[in-house]
Amino acid sequence: MKLHDFLIEEDIKSALKEDIGFGDITTDALVADDAVLSGNLNSRSEGILCGCSVFEKVFKILCNDIKIKFYFKDGDFIACGDKIADISGNARCILTGERTALNYIQRLSGIATETKKYQDAIGDYPTKIVDTRKTTPNFRIFEKYAVKTGGGALHRFNLSDCAMIKDNHIRLAGSIGNAVDKLKENLSHAHKIEVECDTLQQVKEALNCDVDIIMLDNMTISDMKSACDLINGRAIVEASGNVTLQTIKEIASTGVDIISSSAIVSKAPTLDLALDI
Amino acid sequence: MKLHDFLIEEDIKSALKEDIGFGDITTDALVADDAVLSGNLNSRSEGILCGCSVFEKVFKILCNDIKIKFYFKDGDFIACGDKIADISGNARCILTGERTALNYIQRLSGIATETKKYQDAIGDYPTKIVDTRKTTPNFRIFEKYAVKTGGGALHRFNLSDCAMIKDNHIRLAGSIGNAVDKLKENLSHAHKIEVECDTLQQVKEALNCDVDIIMLDNMTISDMKSACDLINGRAIVEASGNVTLQTIKEIASTGVDIISSSAIVSKAPTLDLALDI
Amino acid sequence: MKLHDFLIEEDIKSALKEDIGFGDITTDALVADDAVLSGNLNSRSEGILCGCSVFEKVFKILCNDIKIKFYFKDGDFIACGDKIADISGNARCILTGERTALNYIQRLSGIATETKKYQDAIGDYPTKIVDTRKTTPNFRIFEKYAVKTGGGALHRFNLSDCAMIKDNHIRLAGSIGNAVDKLKENLSHAHKIEVECDTLQQVKEALNCDVDIIMLDNMTISDMKSACDLINGRAIVEASGNVTLQTIKEIASTGVDIISSSAIVSKAPTLDLALDI
Amino acid sequence: MKLHDFLIEEDIKSALKEDIGFGDITTDALVADDAVLSGNLNSRSEGILCGCSVFEKVFKILCNDIKIKFYFKDGDFIACGDKIADISGNARCILTGERTALNYIQRLSGIATETKKYQDAIGDYPTKIVDTRKTTPNFRIFEKYAVKTGGGALHRFNLSDCAMIKDNHIRLAGSIGNAVDKLKENLSHAHKIEVECDTLQQVKEALNCDVDIIMLDNMTISDMKSACDLINGRAIVEASGNVTLQTIKEIASTGVDIISSSAIVSKAPTLDLALDI
Amino acid sequence: MKLHDFLIEEDIKSALKEDIGFGDITTDALVADDAVLSGNLNSRSEGILCGCSVFEKVFKILCNDIKIKFYFKDGDFIACGDKIADISGNARCILTGERTALNYIQRLSGIATETKKYQDAIGDYPTKIVDTRKTTPNFRIFEKYAVKTGGGALHRFNLSDCAMIKDNHIRLAGSIGNAVDKLKENLSHAHKIEVECDTLQQVKEALNCDVDIIMLDNMTISDMKSACDLINGRAIVEASGNVTLQTIKEIASTGVDIISSSAIVSKAPTLDLALDI
Amino acid sequence: MKLHDFLIEEDIKSALKEDIGFGDITTDALVADDAVLSGNLNSRSEGILCGCSVFEKVFKILCNDIKIKFYFKDGDFIACGDKIADISGNARCILTGERTALNYIQRLSGIATETKKYQDAIGDYPTKIVDTRKTTPNFRIFEKYAVKTGGGALHRFNLSDCAMIKDNHIRLAGSIGNAVDKLKENLSHAHKIEVECDTLQQVKEALNCDVDIIMLDNMTISDMKSACDLINGRAIVEASGNVTLQTIKEIASTGVDIISSSAIVSKAPTLDLALDI
Repeated sequence: MKLHDFLIEEDIKSALKEDIGFGDITTDALVADDAVLSGNLNSRSEGILCGCSVFEKVFKILCNDIKIKFYFKDGDFIACGDKIADISGNARCILTGERTALNYIQRLSGIATETKKYQDAIGDYPTKIVDTRKTTPNFRIFEKYAVKTGGGALHRFNLSDCAMIKDNHIRLAGSIGNAVDKLKENLSHAHKIEVECDTLQQVKEALNCDVDIIMLDNMTISDMKSACDLINGRAIVEASGNVTLQTIKEIASTGVDIISSSAIVSKAPTLDLALDI
Repeated sequence: MKLHDFLIEEDIKSALKEDIGFGDITTDALVADDAVLSGNLNSRSEGILCGCSVFEKVFKILCNDIKIKFYFKDGDFIACGDKIADISGNARCILTGERTALNYIQRLSGIATETKKYQDAIGDYPTKIVDTRKTTPNFRIFEKYAVKTGGGALHRFNLSDCAMIKDNHIRLAGSIGNAVDKLKENLSHAHKIEVECDTLQQVKEALNCDVDIIMLDNMTISDMKSACDLINGRAIVEASGNVTLQTIKEIASTGVDIISSSAIVSKAPTLDLALDI
Repeated sequence: MKLHDFLIEEDIKSALKEDIGFGDITTDALVADDAVLSGNLNSRSEGILCGCSVFEKVFKILCNDIKIKFYFKDGDFIACGDKIADISGNARCILTGERTALNYIQRLSGIATETKKYQDAIGDYPTKIVDTRKTTPNFRIFEKYAVKTGGGALHRFNLSDCAMIKDNHIRLAGSIGNAVDKLKENLSHAHKIEVECDTLQQVKEALNCDVDIIMLDNMTISDMKSACDLINGRAIVEASGNVTLQTIKEIASTGVDIISSSAIVSKAPTLDLALDI
Repeated sequence: MKLHDFLIEEDIKSALKEDIGFGDITTDALVADDAVLSGNLNSRSEGILCGCSVFEKVFKILCNDIKIKFYFKDGDFIACGDKIADISGNARCILTGERTALNYIQRLSGIATETKKYQDAIGDYPTKIVDTRKTTPNFRIFEKYAVKTGGGALHRFNLSDCAMIKDNHIRLAGSIGNAVDKLKENLSHAHKIEVECDTLQQVKEALNCDVDIIMLDNMTISDMKSACDLINGRAIVEASGNVTLQTIKEIASTGVDIISSSAIVSKAPTLDLALDI
Repeated sequence: MKLHDFLIEEDIKSALKEDIGFGDITTDALVADDAVLSGNLNSRSEGILCGCSVFEKVFKILCNDIKIKFYFKDGDFIACGDKIADISGNARCILTGERTALNYIQRLSGIATETKKYQDAIGDYPTKIVDTRKTTPNFRIFEKYAVKTGGGALHRFNLSDCAMIKDNHIRLAGSIGNAVDKLKENLSHAHKIEVECDTLQQVKEALNCDVDIIMLDNMTISDMKSACDLINGRAIVEASGNVTLQTIKEIASTGVDIISSSAIVSKAPTLDLALDI
Repeated sequence: MKLHDFLIEEDIKSALKEDIGFGDITTDALVADDAVLSGNLNSRSEGILCGCSVFEKVFKILCNDIKIKFYFKDGDFIACGDKIADISGNARCILTGERTALNYIQRLSGIATETKKYQDAIGDYPTKIVDTRKTTPNFRIFEKYAVKTGGGALHRFNLSDCAMIKDNHIRLAGSIGNAVDKLKENLSHAHKIEVECDTLQQVKEALNCDVDIIMLDNMTISDMKSACDLINGRAIVEASGNVTLQTIKEIASTGVDIISSSAIVSKAPTLDLALDI
């Protein structure tokens, strides 16, 4: 996944406006317009680095000739104390942009780090951890990027790139069969159909309808195993619910292909990085 | 703090676009345009509710005549299992808007809940927990609102509403005295000056300069006590660094007025709320 | 597919600004602010109506209490001379909004009409005509909606909702096999893979890789037949190239599932509708 | 007419966002970030080239150091098979931007080509083909530019740069005379007045009012001749209605100065150009 | 000229954001959310009222059910002490919106008042005062509206609705004749040509070229008279330069049709209006 | 105060769009795309220069390689006839951008000049002239910058960076004491409290509440003196009302710290600067 510069530029400018307001009244008063500074971005904890290009872009927007040299790249493991980057250039820009730049890279690295923990907890199983649509409003593209950087896979981006039949859809349509039939009449051939199943009975119905993905929602480990046996490769199997660092390996052991969890995004703490001048 | 409808409308529309893309291909295919639904917003954990007006606005944007009746209001404690609201109206709009509405209210309630825990941990001391500028890019106004709703107080909104002299400013200006002098020449009479101090020596210097707020940065409990004794009401005292639910009461006991922590925003897990149809 | 009001409102306001500039200098000078008018939207040719809600929204933006009553709805066939709608209300708003409203509905109805012709030309074959990404910049959601309204199906919305391996991707990856392998490592489980094939040999390679959709690009009728025999239901088959109203039935007869053509959008003439006051 | 870079940049970025969504999932997975490509923009039909700077800008937004060398310029005739441009640079950017760049240049060249056909069909008469306000919403500046590039002239840009009294205005004002009088009281001295006339009688009335432009709306050839004789240079004469490649020369022969037609924009097919890598 | 609600809404929201920032910290703290207020908009000086709909819109954006009753309308003369409007409704919205609403109406009324003074100073001559393009960036539509409301006429809106040949254009083209010839080849038939003349010799040249408007730039009264005699109705005559309340009548006496001056906009003091609660 | 390039770029682009519309129809027709020009920015009056970077940015947006060399900088005094800058580069860009660039620099210099006059009129008193929130909608950051450049100080930026208790707030709260108490419960420790006082009695009340700033609103000179004596350094004292170039020195002589006046912004005439090619 690539964060195109022009796609994120507007977001970053908006974040800078949010933090600068009418101006950095401290720095503008105390620092000469032509003063220069140099410093380092250092790690104060360990984790997966994510957001280098965003970090750099923040400063470039303020001052195009700032120099940043990274010693790590997105996806790299960083230890506590590692020097991540050198930064040098106009002092006002560095001081004014510092907080916004850190806010991006700390949050993205936090999500990448959390994702990596979940993926690692799965061990040797081929199962992948994936994210959900439970993201911070207007921040999804960054969060998706961080999940991918942390070694996770991605679920659908939004409501228009994969059909997902949930309990309410089933209720309104009358049955899984009705829902899938109606959906297939309308859906683009370019999109997949996923059905959320609460019971093995529903799994059987979904299988009969020849859907692409079957989500096992909040099932027991033993039901998940039975479901995987039933499905036997005829659909991609996704597990959801009760996913923690403690439970994820056992869930993976049931044979599911995909484990989705909002926790890797919405409950990930930020990673502690600091700009030392 | 009031979240003006017109101020947040644009953010919410943008979040809906982010989640809807070219359309909710599942719901549009399965649910008739005139179908209606009713359901409840329920709590699946306990905490402080925050974001009712935002939650409602999401659905109003999709369908102006949706009906939502809240049984709690922002700032109320909600227990696990509490019914927070009834919702009824156009089925497509409820299903299409559900995720975005929940993303807002879960995140805001999570921050309010975390803030409340920190404030409660302070006990009877008059000290207030306050937030920082370590916020999610382009989401600060919501996060500030949630901190306030959770019983916290607010630090400056951004770089233009309060001057804060940090270590790098001091280094560039030569001394705290120089920095404050230079700042006072430039600063609006409407704005305060805060100085970040690492040592008791710096606290003395700042006091001599007659600043409004002195931040004790990463000091030991005993140094914080000495600093408060020194300052003795001549400036507002803010403590920062190593603030956890475990340490906050002892920090408050030193006599500081304000304890600032990014954790109440950037490390707060979302609160588990669900829309049951 | 649903055109959410809030999604199109911004586009329509922008189109009105484009056409109004600093004001409708003729109408503002000649028509009293409280004058009222009534008129009809009439058809001056035959085709498929599309864009009623957009037409109405244009006037609602200018004057919220304008009354419009439609006698047909999106997707309906309209004959030359049919009265499509009554409109009445503030005269200035009707005169100022007329051109923009017609620009939308004429263009959308033109595309729906052209799509219908292609779908009808397929006759009884189960094959569907679908659109492509060859759309007018910043107008795609309207064009997609018109294709759907005209009875066509939709291809992917953009570059992020379905992977399509084209000739250049194959060349850069070395082979179809390499490309699919590499893609599967990276792709979300929620997304399909389509491969563009120029030859039967490529079709075989794609089949071996177990892809979701195989596009037969500019193949002869006889090669398309052979390809469909080869594929035999193991992938969705899409035909592309040389699609005209004359050729489409024979292409459908080869057994392909989908025929894609940019012509239904980019070469569709507008439908002649007029507002008679 | 000049398409200022800063004026179109925002439109192009928006078009790229429309087509890229969350990312080009195929290219990002298959092509290395530092891979390079070179290719040509070739013509697969004949016509008038239009949109070179827009085509180039699309790629520049994605990757500032892409190299494009054009062998033709806007307004040039291109034959089928002509190499229009060389392109080389970052492979991802070329593949990701290809469709959007082509969508612009194909559509603009299509309009320029259609315009040229109409102007050529007029032969040696001094009459000019001009466009109308029947344009694609939010795409008018590009379409105007293409008409100009194709050798056509332009009508007013929007409702604020020339007053045009249409049938409904006449009806509401009571007469052409009333309308013109009222308009002259209000209008800027910098703007012209055009009157749409259906009959020779109306032409006489308009002449008496000393208006700048008289439009002959859907008149017969013989009435147009009589109108031109009547007007005899005292106003610019514009013909409108029933303008086709077959009828335009005869319309021009009546002596009108200007023939306006929406067909050159709204019914122009796109020109077939392709990027061959 | 009509200020369409949807055209100005975005500007007003942006102005409110500019003034509200993160919130009205005083009012939000001191005034209950359901408190109500009533008050009057009163005049503290005399002049021409302008901007009633803008004033009202500011409050409507904050609180849709605010009640405002105007006793005067745009263009009316108001004396010092006149009650212009009653306002009642939500107290927070009235207090928070007050400054922005006044900023609009005071500035627009100031411009209308200044324009009226200039037009009145012309006395019985048929000459009209008109504005120029010397306006406040991003505020032109409001300033144009105020000039019109004050009884002035308008010059071109911007660079695209009337051609004006200035000294530098003449120099680059070689002569007025060359410039007009070249312009006529390119210009839309819907647009006029104005030539800026510094000398009577240039006036003669412009007349020979049959242009629509001749501007006499910084000429003496006697030269203006001679120019008007020369032109004798064959072009609209505009005077520019040295226009003050003292000189304008004598300028009008020379027979010019139009006197343009930036002073009515850029040097107009705001009109003193106040909201008394 | 620093006008960050990225903060003003959007405003300037918008102003250019406002003035260019669909294009500079005169210049585009008359001037070759590769023609070059050079000229000077000259002063035709005397005052304080302000807006150099904005002036330059206007042209840079149109044509990145334009060359501008300034002989003065923001804040410098310029005499009538002074050459302020050389400009050279693409002729079209210079002619098309001229008006917008001048509109910015003339207005900002006008405000800076007016501010300087007021500050100078204060003479040797340490009092500072400050601006108010009576600014042009959506132009405040530029106006604040000009006040600062002219040697004035700034009041609060907007409603969120300093609390100001006005008469209506006092009335709604019951008393100054109540208002301050309620405010202190809610206010951030980072923000100051100002109270607007009409009488000496109110000054006493405000002093008792230990507020940061006391505004003396429309008081007589003798009351202002008494108020300053009363306050005696325990709060910053701001005078407001009846501030003119004639009265300001006497107001300063009363001992107030700050004199606020909207006149320096809202009644400042533009400064006469011209671009001579």
